[in-house]
Amino acid sequence: MSIKNLIFFGLLAFIPVSIAAHFLHWGPLIVFLTAGAAILPLAGWMGTATEEIAVVLGPSLGGLLNATFGNATELIIALVALNAGLIDVVKASLTGSIIGNLLLVMGLSMLLGGIRYKEQEFQPIIARVNASSMNLAVIALLLPTAMNYTSTGIGETTIQKLSIAVAFVLIAVYALTLLFSMKTHAYLYDVGVAEITEDSEETTEEHDAEDINLPLWVTVLLACTVLVAIESELLVGTLEEATAMLGLTSLFTGVILLPIVGNAAEHATAVTVAMKNKMDLTVSVAVGSSLQIALFVAPVLVIAGWLMGQPMDLDFNPFELVAVAVAVLITNSISSDGKSNWLEGTLLLAAYAVLGLAFYFHPVIEGIG
Amino acid sequence: MSIKNLIFFGLLAFIPVSIAAHFLHWGPLIVFLTAGAAILPLAGWMGTATEEIAVVLGPSLGGLLNATFGNATELIIALVALNAGLIDVVKASLTGSIIGNLLLVMGLSMLLGGIRYKEQEFQPIIARVNASSMNLAVIALLLPTAMNYTSTGIGETTIQKLSIAVAFVLIAVYALTLLFSMKTHAYLYDVGVAEITEDSEETTEEHDAEDINLPLWVTVLLACTVLVAIESELLVGTLEEATAMLGLTSLFTGVILLPIVGNAAEHATAVTVAMKNKMDLTVSVAVGSSLQIALFVAPVLVIAGWLMGQPMDLDFNPFELVAVAVAVLITNSISSDGKSNWLEGTLLLAAYAVLGLAFYFHPVIEGIG
Amino acid sequence: MSIKNLIFFGLLAFIPVSIAAHFLHWGPLIVFLTAGAAILPLAGWMGTATEEIAVVLGPSLGGLLNATFGNATELIIALVALNAGLIDVVKASLTGSIIGNLLLVMGLSMLLGGIRYKEQEFQPIIARVNASSMNLAVIALLLPTAMNYTSTGIGETTIQKLSIAVAFVLIAVYALTLLFSMKTHAYLYDVGVAEITEDSEETTEEHDAEDINLPLWVTVLLACTVLVAIESELLVGTLEEATAMLGLTSLFTGVILLPIVGNAAEHATAVTVAMKNKMDLTVSVAVGSSLQIALFVAPVLVIAGWLMGQPMDLDFNPFELVAVAVAVLITNSISSDGKSNWLEGTLLLAAYAVLGLAFYFHPVIEGIG
Repeated sequence: MSIKNLIFFGLLAFIPVSIAAHFLHWGPLIVFLTAGAAILPLAGWMGTATEEIAVVLGPSLGGLLNATFGNATELIIALVALNAGLIDVVKASLTGSIIGNLLLVMGLSMLLGGIRYKEQEFQPIIARVNASSMNLAVIALLLPTAMNYTSTGIGETTIQKLSIAVAFVLIAVYALTLLFSMKTHAYLYDVGVAEITEDSEETTEEHDAEDINLPLWVTVLLACTVLVAIESELLVGTLEEATAMLGLTSLFTGVILLPIVGNAAEHATAVTVAMKNKMDLTVSVAVGSSLQIALFVAPVLVIAGWLMGQPMDLDFNPFELVAVAVAVLITNSISSDGKSNWLEGTLLLAAYAVLGLAFYFHPVIEGIG
Repeated sequence: MSIKNLIFFGLLAFIPVSIAAHFLHWGPLIVFLTAGAAILPLAGWMGTATEEIAVVLGPSLGGLLNATFGNATELIIALVALNAGLIDVVKASLTGSIIGNLLLVMGLSMLLGGIRYKEQEFQPIIARVNASSMNLAVIALLLPTAMNYTSTGIGETTIQKLSIAVAFVLIAVYALTLLFSMKTHAYLYDVGVAEITEDSEETTEEHDAEDINLPLWVTVLLACTVLVAIESELLVGTLEEATAMLGLTSLFTGVILLPIVGNAAEHATAVTVAMKNKMDLTVSVAVGSSLQIALFVAPVLVIAGWLMGQPMDLDFNPFELVAVAVAVLITNSISSDGKSNWLEGTLLLAAYAVLGLAFYFHPVIEGIG
Repeated sequence: MSIKNLIFFGLLAFIPVSIAAHFLHWGPLIVFLTAGAAILPLAGWMGTATEEIAVVLGPSLGGLLNATFGNATELIIALVALNAGLIDVVKASLTGSIIGNLLLVMGLSMLLGGIRYKEQEFQPIIARVNASSMNLAVIALLLPTAMNYTSTGIGETTIQKLSIAVAFVLIAVYALTLLFSMKTHAYLYDVGVAEITEDSEETTEEHDAEDINLPLWVTVLLACTVLVAIESELLVGTLEEATAMLGLTSLFTGVILLPIVGNAAEHATAVTVAMKNKMDLTVSVAVGSSLQIALFVAPVLVIAGWLMGQPMDLDFNPFELVAVAVAVLITNSISSDGKSNWLEGTLLLAAYAVLGLAFYFHPVIEGIG
């Protein structure tokens, strides 16, 4: 606990440091790194605050809150980057988040959990429903890319219109997925919820709704949201210069680096619970987070970009299409049986390593930094 | 019943109307729409006649008849369009039929059935054999496209030769699939047949072979076949002008509109039986129809085109390849466990909607209308 | 037995014949065919010698030996071809080996086994672990191709560097797969081993480690290795001229012909045991062999090419990518349930036939013969 707290407060110190670095002109690289570090504890606190408020609001409204604010950090970073016109970085970070959750988070969880337990089990039904939703989401997200890639003479406005139409379909599907998991077929998810409750009880003592200090947590949530916005500005403002100084392309930064920062909290949770043999929770965190990005964050960004006058369409780099398709295929093939072992974790990590290498060697593309 | 009959006779009235529209020059749009409406009841009657004759002929010959005439309406429309040189429309209607059966028919059935029943089950073994056959069929059909797309300098005659060779392989596979389902492994399909019989008994009283008026039904089948041909001529002859007047591309017409007309009977049957919780029958109608198109109708058209001097090859628009691959993948992922619920139906429909949007926004391609 | 021996010694006679053909200038076609025929019995003996030595060395070291020398014939042919600069033929034979093992060997085994037994079963767990490893391997192998195909302006050195990095990842995964199957989860593979032992006992009487004449078998292994190298020189040296005389492209030779010669021993074993209803062994031979090629032979060749100054990268012909992806998909779809029947075997063979037709009609590509 004390080590965890130490790391936590250590990272918190990066908030003032990053702001100082910005105003005292310590150079883009330092601003970039300290802002990235400062976001980590803020993301953690936003998650805690969201969960506490959700307990007070009860299962339905609370579930909705969780579903909306679960990836708030990523959404804020993406909105700031979108506003700054870094459209390709935003798109890259979307595919990177999906790949990272499915391969890196799941892979590390299955590997570390699998070293301790010979074989771990999780609900195959949920894995399957999730897999089908994920397949649909990925298909929908990547269809404009596929269309543009397989035909010539398609105008940008056509792709833009198609992207917005797809975004509305995805948000509708997301709403129906919530209806399914929280209302009509909530019983399927009971095991997972039991594990979540059990897990929370171990870490925090108080868990009755009346014990929770609602005003406190709302304040924390708002304060963190503002701070993350501020830090995101610093991060995004220095992103191009800093990554250039590190010799990295913006594509690599968007697909590999940003998602690791944005998803650090999920990483920690998923791996921790996997090592306690609660694979249902691991799968629900990792796949749930990817689903949220594909069905909610991505379409919100498309619509936001349209309203903000930053024409964010769903026309990805074709190699991103390949990478996401590959990540979904191998995750499906590994998780469809509801069992996992260390080799399966290793295979996911190897797939991530290979994709990471490919993005590292990938030359800079026009339109990206 | 009376509503059903009313609709039926109402649609039947479009037969004389469409012919009048043609000779009295009421314009291509009216001819197109009335001919389309006239085909619906004819397709229904052809289906009934085929089934009645099949009962008289006994399981083996009758099964063969069903397998050959099951998609007779589509085959006739396609042959007429092929003869008129509308090769790209024919190809588009093939992919559209596969996509429509897998996503629209299955999706609507699972959604409406799933609203009434929390969870519906069907035989996973048949679903899997069907899925494997479907995978092979789709791979074979799309291989010439993939080959042409991934390499340069492939002559048209090469693609044509490859297409004809693939067509013969597919017809052989179709024959073997019939042998499997009707002879060597017929017992696997017993559950489905029981449901079919049970379902037929509910709707029609008389079902013994001796009660069936064979000459009557043969006459009905022949008369309907002739009428569908006639109406197909009207439909195809006005297709280009009419769709242009509606502001639609020929690609959209071929992939989305024509298959809805051609498959209306299957749509009605599949959804009706799903709402009676007979999902085996739904799956066998929807997947069976796609299989028949991929393994029988498509290769027959390739060979017919070759004999008719209309070089119909299997070089599809690459985006059609993407769409069919996507439809097969998501159907496999949803149906492989032998269970369905309303969310899975919604996901299939969402996939269909997204593909429909993409085809709607897809610009006209050279060679098509 | 006697027929088998007759064939065996008959083929052995091709060793002197092929050497005579070479020195007496009987023409490239005769040298090519006789060298190909001479390799068949040598490959069989190398397999037997490897297995006998493995028994003496015990399960761990013996397993390692089997895992390394299992595809020795193919590795030798490929190294000789690589040294001769026939890089595209080597690449084509890698994809061809994978396709041939998954579709031709599995398909023929399932068909012939399925004709005798209505339904055959094998361990779905192993099939699934294998499938996941295979998916990863194929993804990794084909990623450089996908990257090169989806982007422009990627230099050859980039692809080369990426290929070498991927090769090291694959060899690491291969080592971990062996650790999994021989150490941490060896119990999963017990059924297969029991069948192997049982099967061996039927064919050979003596099977205790002390009965095995180790020096004899080491000599046999070394002698065969040298002879295969020699014969490979003859085969590779005449390959281009001979296939041109037969009217075949080098692509077809590499993808279809060479793998049939190189994998003849596996073919025979897999089909024989399938007809004895030992499908676990069939699957382990066919999929195991593909896995070995993808995870061991291919990366070793990349690294060897790099050391030999023959820049063998993993940038395949895009149609090879399609073919391998298709083979893996259909094999997964058929083998994931742990059951097989004759129709499934037929579907695999039909997929092989269709791919074979496509490669046959595929025009010669620059860089290849």
